[in-house]
Amino acid sequence: MPFKDECGVFGVTELFEASRQTYLGLYALQHRGQEAAGICSRDGHGLHLHKAQGYVADIFSQPVLDSLPGDAAIGHTRYSTTGGNVASAAHPFLIHGRFGQVALCHNGNLTNTAALRDRLIAEGHTFTSPSDSEVILALINRADAGTVEDAVVEALKLCEGAFSLLILTQDALLAARDPHGFRPLAMGRLGEGFAFSSETCGFDLVGADYLREVEPGEVVIVKGREVQSRFPREKVVAKPCVFEHVYFARPDSNVFSRSVMGTRREMGRLLAQRHPVEADLIVPVPDSGVSAALGYAEASGIPFDFGMIRNHYVGRTFIEPKQSIRSFGVKVKLNPVRDLLNGKRVVLVDDSIVRGTTSRKIVEMVRAAGAKEVHMRISSPPTTHSCFYGIDTPSREQLIASSRDNEAIRAFIEADSLGYLTLEDLQAAVRDGQGGQGFCYACFTGEYAVAPEAKGVC
Amino acid sequence: MPFKDECGVFGVTELFEASRQTYLGLYALQHRGQEAAGICSRDGHGLHLHKAQGYVADIFSQPVLDSLPGDAAIGHTRYSTTGGNVASAAHPFLIHGRFGQVALCHNGNLTNTAALRDRLIAEGHTFTSPSDSEVILALINRADAGTVEDAVVEALKLCEGAFSLLILTQDALLAARDPHGFRPLAMGRLGEGFAFSSETCGFDLVGADYLREVEPGEVVIVKGREVQSRFPREKVVAKPCVFEHVYFARPDSNVFSRSVMGTRREMGRLLAQRHPVEADLIVPVPDSGVSAALGYAEASGIPFDFGMIRNHYVGRTFIEPKQSIRSFGVKVKLNPVRDLLNGKRVVLVDDSIVRGTTSRKIVEMVRAAGAKEVHMRISSPPTTHSCFYGIDTPSREQLIASSRDNEAIRAFIEADSLGYLTLEDLQAAVRDGQGGQGFCYACFTGEYAVAPEAKGVC
Amino acid sequence: MPFKDECGVFGVTELFEASRQTYLGLYALQHRGQEAAGICSRDGHGLHLHKAQGYVADIFSQPVLDSLPGDAAIGHTRYSTTGGNVASAAHPFLIHGRFGQVALCHNGNLTNTAALRDRLIAEGHTFTSPSDSEVILALINRADAGTVEDAVVEALKLCEGAFSLLILTQDALLAARDPHGFRPLAMGRLGEGFAFSSETCGFDLVGADYLREVEPGEVVIVKGREVQSRFPREKVVAKPCVFEHVYFARPDSNVFSRSVMGTRREMGRLLAQRHPVEADLIVPVPDSGVSAALGYAEASGIPFDFGMIRNHYVGRTFIEPKQSIRSFGVKVKLNPVRDLLNGKRVVLVDDSIVRGTTSRKIVEMVRAAGAKEVHMRISSPPTTHSCFYGIDTPSREQLIASSRDNEAIRAFIEADSLGYLTLEDLQAAVRDGQGGQGFCYACFTGEYAVAPEAKGVC
Amino acid sequence: MPFKDECGVFGVTELFEASRQTYLGLYALQHRGQEAAGICSRDGHGLHLHKAQGYVADIFSQPVLDSLPGDAAIGHTRYSTTGGNVASAAHPFLIHGRFGQVALCHNGNLTNTAALRDRLIAEGHTFTSPSDSEVILALINRADAGTVEDAVVEALKLCEGAFSLLILTQDALLAARDPHGFRPLAMGRLGEGFAFSSETCGFDLVGADYLREVEPGEVVIVKGREVQSRFPREKVVAKPCVFEHVYFARPDSNVFSRSVMGTRREMGRLLAQRHPVEADLIVPVPDSGVSAALGYAEASGIPFDFGMIRNHYVGRTFIEPKQSIRSFGVKVKLNPVRDLLNGKRVVLVDDSIVRGTTSRKIVEMVRAAGAKEVHMRISSPPTTHSCFYGIDTPSREQLIASSRDNEAIRAFIEADSLGYLTLEDLQAAVRDGQGGQGFCYACFTGEYAVAPEAKGVC
Repeated sequence: MPFKDECGVFGVTELFEASRQTYLGLYALQHRGQEAAGICSRDGHGLHLHKAQGYVADIFSQPVLDSLPGDAAIGHTRYSTTGGNVASAAHPFLIHGRFGQVALCHNGNLTNTAALRDRLIAEGHTFTSPSDSEVILALINRADAGTVEDAVVEALKLCEGAFSLLILTQDALLAARDPHGFRPLAMGRLGEGFAFSSETCGFDLVGADYLREVEPGEVVIVKGREVQSRFPREKVVAKPCVFEHVYFARPDSNVFSRSVMGTRREMGRLLAQRHPVEADLIVPVPDSGVSAALGYAEASGIPFDFGMIRNHYVGRTFIEPKQSIRSFGVKVKLNPVRDLLNGKRVVLVDDSIVRGTTSRKIVEMVRAAGAKEVHMRISSPPTTHSCFYGIDTPSREQLIASSRDNEAIRAFIEADSLGYLTLEDLQAAVRDGQGGQGFCYACFTGEYAVAPEAKGVC
Repeated sequence: MPFKDECGVFGVTELFEASRQTYLGLYALQHRGQEAAGICSRDGHGLHLHKAQGYVADIFSQPVLDSLPGDAAIGHTRYSTTGGNVASAAHPFLIHGRFGQVALCHNGNLTNTAALRDRLIAEGHTFTSPSDSEVILALINRADAGTVEDAVVEALKLCEGAFSLLILTQDALLAARDPHGFRPLAMGRLGEGFAFSSETCGFDLVGADYLREVEPGEVVIVKGREVQSRFPREKVVAKPCVFEHVYFARPDSNVFSRSVMGTRREMGRLLAQRHPVEADLIVPVPDSGVSAALGYAEASGIPFDFGMIRNHYVGRTFIEPKQSIRSFGVKVKLNPVRDLLNGKRVVLVDDSIVRGTTSRKIVEMVRAAGAKEVHMRISSPPTTHSCFYGIDTPSREQLIASSRDNEAIRAFIEADSLGYLTLEDLQAAVRDGQGGQGFCYACFTGEYAVAPEAKGVC
Repeated sequence: MPFKDECGVFGVTELFEASRQTYLGLYALQHRGQEAAGICSRDGHGLHLHKAQGYVADIFSQPVLDSLPGDAAIGHTRYSTTGGNVASAAHPFLIHGRFGQVALCHNGNLTNTAALRDRLIAEGHTFTSPSDSEVILALINRADAGTVEDAVVEALKLCEGAFSLLILTQDALLAARDPHGFRPLAMGRLGEGFAFSSETCGFDLVGADYLREVEPGEVVIVKGREVQSRFPREKVVAKPCVFEHVYFARPDSNVFSRSVMGTRREMGRLLAQRHPVEADLIVPVPDSGVSAALGYAEASGIPFDFGMIRNHYVGRTFIEPKQSIRSFGVKVKLNPVRDLLNGKRVVLVDDSIVRGTTSRKIVEMVRAAGAKEVHMRISSPPTTHSCFYGIDTPSREQLIASSRDNEAIRAFIEADSLGYLTLEDLQAAVRDGQGGQGFCYACFTGEYAVAPEAKGVC
Repeated sequence: MPFKDECGVFGVTELFEASRQTYLGLYALQHRGQEAAGICSRDGHGLHLHKAQGYVADIFSQPVLDSLPGDAAIGHTRYSTTGGNVASAAHPFLIHGRFGQVALCHNGNLTNTAALRDRLIAEGHTFTSPSDSEVILALINRADAGTVEDAVVEALKLCEGAFSLLILTQDALLAARDPHGFRPLAMGRLGEGFAFSSETCGFDLVGADYLREVEPGEVVIVKGREVQSRFPREKVVAKPCVFEHVYFARPDSNVFSRSVMGTRREMGRLLAQRHPVEADLIVPVPDSGVSAALGYAEASGIPFDFGMIRNHYVGRTFIEPKQSIRSFGVKVKLNPVRDLLNGKRVVLVDDSIVRGTTSRKIVEMVRAAGAKEVHMRISSPPTTHSCFYGIDTPSREQLIASSRDNEAIRAFIEADSLGYLTLEDLQAAVRDGQGGQGFCYACFTGEYAVAPEAKGVC
């Protein structure tokens, strides 16, 4: 339950009612961003854009979808802004330039935004927001290329960092991933056309069939029914974000060609082997710890049950009485099941610990509900470093594992024991066939495949 | 996932910021009604009321709570109306009459509303809505009694059917249950005062300690810190609604002094014994089938996993593309996990089957995700009769089990096998110590403890 | 520009799309109340009600009007509430009682509400709001009568004070005025049916033809196309509210069979004769002073012009800079035309002075715009007493003219001279043919035709 | 009542709470655009922007104004968009470029937008909307200049057509008018700082003192308390828009150093001399015909009165009954005063006739109210040509006077007589001292000072 979600992208082309399909795809990706959403569609008259703050289901009413006609569309759900005018930071971004209208959605974070931006400004370009998406659009527009497709290829040669992009032009839809492939992007077939989605759960709702991943470094260009593949830069070792499997992705998705739920269950199994404990009950921290907890229960033979129930009606902010309630912030979301926990030795399974404060409240709450012992098991290694590739993590100093060892963290969260998954186990769980070279583990190791420039979100 | 939820009530007295506590209690009871909510508080200046359509967290902003001062309050979450002006049907109802101001919240359904209403109208009374709550208030106002407490006692002698009530007067808070105790109502202690809640999950959030059930037929009267107990009518055999345990209540609640989650798990275990099947995977229909599925998995030894994921961002209505999507209505809420289901013999566990149409779509969807066999197991007996005690069930003809036998239902939902829990097993699961006399099973048996008059909701 | 508006009622019967016509009628009566509005319609299935806070044009959308079917409807625009739950005080009020459903809209204020209410409560009745409209409905319901029409007649025998009512029953529409006829109510013909409106401007928009006033003390009963007239009480001298002509009514209305605009112009002429002054320019305080100012200009021969312009985009509240702006409250609504006023001797014409504070700001503002002299002329006598018949006036102590003479008021508002219309002139302007007996002048004289009980609004 | 309003701009600098003052200034300019509004403020941290659809008073709540800190601000009220995404077309526009952040508001319409845009796109620039304001910002950003002030001067050398601009940079506020000065822009002093406003009514509310016009062709640069004046291009004969005096501006404003109300009254006087008629009553078409009607009445000696009353509660759209009402569209806004019009020979005074359809409905409505004769008098010459300088006029073919002579128009609107003001009289009324060279009369003459390129709005 640690980091805030990042962004999600979805697009379809060569499909009747493209914006309606995109709206449904975005709805399935809502967990990747709840602050804002947008869709840009294309018909014979040009590109049509609508973006706003709020939930997908609230933004896209019937009249709004009617104002987005055509047979190709791209969309975006956004987690949050780096501040300033929220509306101006929502995606897609749409420009009118050398190649007519071009729209872009972005999941990820460039690491050379400031340098590119400075250079573009020096060359006479202007920006309407701090978004790195505008930087990519400017690079496309200024590329030394005769077609927009070539221009995209040229522009992406200059972009460092993480990006999974969908680009809509007057006659093509392009899907691209950075050379390391930090963020996911899958390709599917829907009717006579194609669909692209951050996760496969987007395909499931609209009935698209999964085809393959957009490969790291690849630009897929769909014009009419013809599909082309380009690789702007030399191949490097792919570094897909392991945290998608640990926490971000929906469990019913496939991400980087692997089942998220299956991976998480395996993490739980390995965690049980690595850190066994005599206990009566395995309890997940809902919803992110559920699959790992099932795996832990399976491997340990200890019964699994929902010892905490999550309240799904949570609004934006809750009004606390002045006579304040113990652990209010956590209790408003999670309620312990006293009858289940009372007198038990409980293993809590969560996916990660960020600052440690929430974990401490949960341990305290479970103990107050009668648990005799509370053992915390974490289905990933200690999070010691910030992410610069599109995930909104706190600064290093705020990460409890950046400065404390296992015993100190255990003491802080007041658990009877604490066990993290090891890096090796994590690599085994995600089947990292490249000996630990096949994923980005920077938040656990500090080994950044691309040097960070500054923090930001997609 | 069958019936719509009924209503929830919550109240506190002798407590600083009573309306804030009530708002939190109602938030915990949100699952019992999402259409409307209201709170009536009382201070030295009288009673203060606010009610509106929508979610608890949206209705009760800071300024609204500020407009509800005082140290006693009652509140209500409402499932829906029988039609007409929605706002006028929200609870609490507040009248100014013989005993000054009196407010009332009601969970349940009187069975002699029409007769009482006709009589009251003949006597010169008027009503502003079709609600039976207004009937109870009118009876209180017209009772041959010198105090409002006596008047409540007198009024309740005339009410047939199901009611769990909270009543707020200028100097007392009253909690009452009908003689059969169809609907739950628990009493707790909070600070120096008392709290009442349909389910104990309401107590958990505000930090109240569970004391006891308001007994069937009892009127608890709290004046200041003094508590009195009255029984308006002769005792009868209690008939608490078994469906609270099957489906309605939150799993983390205790209802009728029993843990809901524990009961459901036991239902699953007994179901596994009654209807075993060779299978690879136990899959709950989320969220209502989860505990029973865990019990089924435990008893059968077959692995449990979330083969379907529920999307919690569901808005009111979803716009379907014209080129309609197969099983759209179900898929918007539930997504099958292909990697998990593919090639498996799957046992689906749900709490009940109403019309059969949703179950059919779920079976079809799971099969389309690759399941080799789909076995449906239901953690309650066939639902053959409508409820007249506060639950919104369809008419008998619409209940598939009212006219079809097990095999016909199985064929309709296109499952490979279908097994219901038996009535005896259900009685065992809820520990019905009175040989099947200790709960209301009317929706399974048609044996109504109180003769129905007409259908309606709380 | 003194008092806040009171309420307006409108109804039609025997007319296709009755609620749509009522909505338009209420829109024309919007100036009589901007806080809330409601419509109750009737078709073969019963009565249908919608009421809410806000403007008529915002409340009644297409779907809302579609939910109000049938060929008879009554509606109401409300100025404000006496406090408490705003929504519960909007009209129409709808009850289900002895005579089935009965709905009522009320413009005016009973003077024996408290006594009636006490009596009804003692008899066992209950109320859901402090509104005197509920009292009338209760009296109707309890009347010793066999039909609802007779019951209305009986009930109105008990009501003292001011009321212009529209009542909708399952087969009739009734329109009634109190014996003194304090508040207006006109009857028109629209197609094959009938319309009723507080002012004739309601008829103009829907294209109804004015027939006649509902007479003081009369109950007009329309059943199908048959019209009946009843007089519950003995005739008394009519006392229509003269302030409708001075300020409340729209200038394009006829009220009490007289043209409002014509009457106001005559007031201005008489004011010019009574209080002449050497001046260069006649300037109305818009919008209420316009007609009288035109009359003053005509009689005096001094040029008329709009020396102040009113801003019609005024929202609810305006945010004032901390470095506050002189006369901000007035300037946000009125802007002086410097080029016109500069160096001029100006006569300001307004309809009345309440507390004097606004008049003082206006005089100051006009002087600051360069006026050499500012003479204030008021087209009614000094307002010395509160109204108890349906108009929201401040208490006597707050009325500047209740305690200060002409010279003291002039000094307070800092005008060079001040002249009020005399009572005799006012009587002449409204053609009070009964020697000053034909209107209610209580706010100028303190002679109340019905003894007041307590203050309140419709 | 002919054309839709154009845009309004307002700005202040060197002033505490600059955004609050700007909000009030925009509120006073609300009549110049009701579709959208925006404010950009500047403090030590940069520029802060908020823009949205709706009314000024609704958009700028307390928290919004709090998010716009600093001591300089510019704002805009917008009439409408040329289509597409409305939000993206609201002003101010804000870019980050060579000169840091630069924001711009624009009233007017460039006539070489397409050419400039094509050139800029060819040079590698991109646009986010079709607005010509973005073109100006791009020109500024690309100017061969070392400072942003010089860049503005360079950029404006390339802009043809109409523009009154406010530009906010990180250390200056600039106000500019095109060489012909088509659109107004006045400069005032407010406290220690300066204010700029399309019309002087904006100054009145905030208490600013009018200093002078920003001159045609001038760029006023305010940095700190220093004011500089630049003239990018050679002087040409000024062509201020005469229609500001005929219709657009608020009557209480001074525009182009002349009192609008005074000018309109003079138009009415001259109209009476040019087209006298035997009649009983002068009636303005409210609100635009009021001042001219007063002038007509003065010169003719015929009494003036408000024979039609305007309803100011008009919402966006009105629901008409299916059984449609005669002249519904006009009647919803204007109501004739039957008592005044009945039997009279009426002179209607309006400012212009566009298509003729509204005028025809008004004549019909006045006649239906009993007028014996209806004479139409128009306080400007026949409108025969479209505007290309910032006013939203229909195409030439839709202007009734472009293809019909006086008699044909009279017949179409069914008036008894019709008289337009002559061009010479109009020139006299606005004191065109340059023998008809001192204003733009293109909509009456087709003599365009700058060749039009294509139609659009500000």
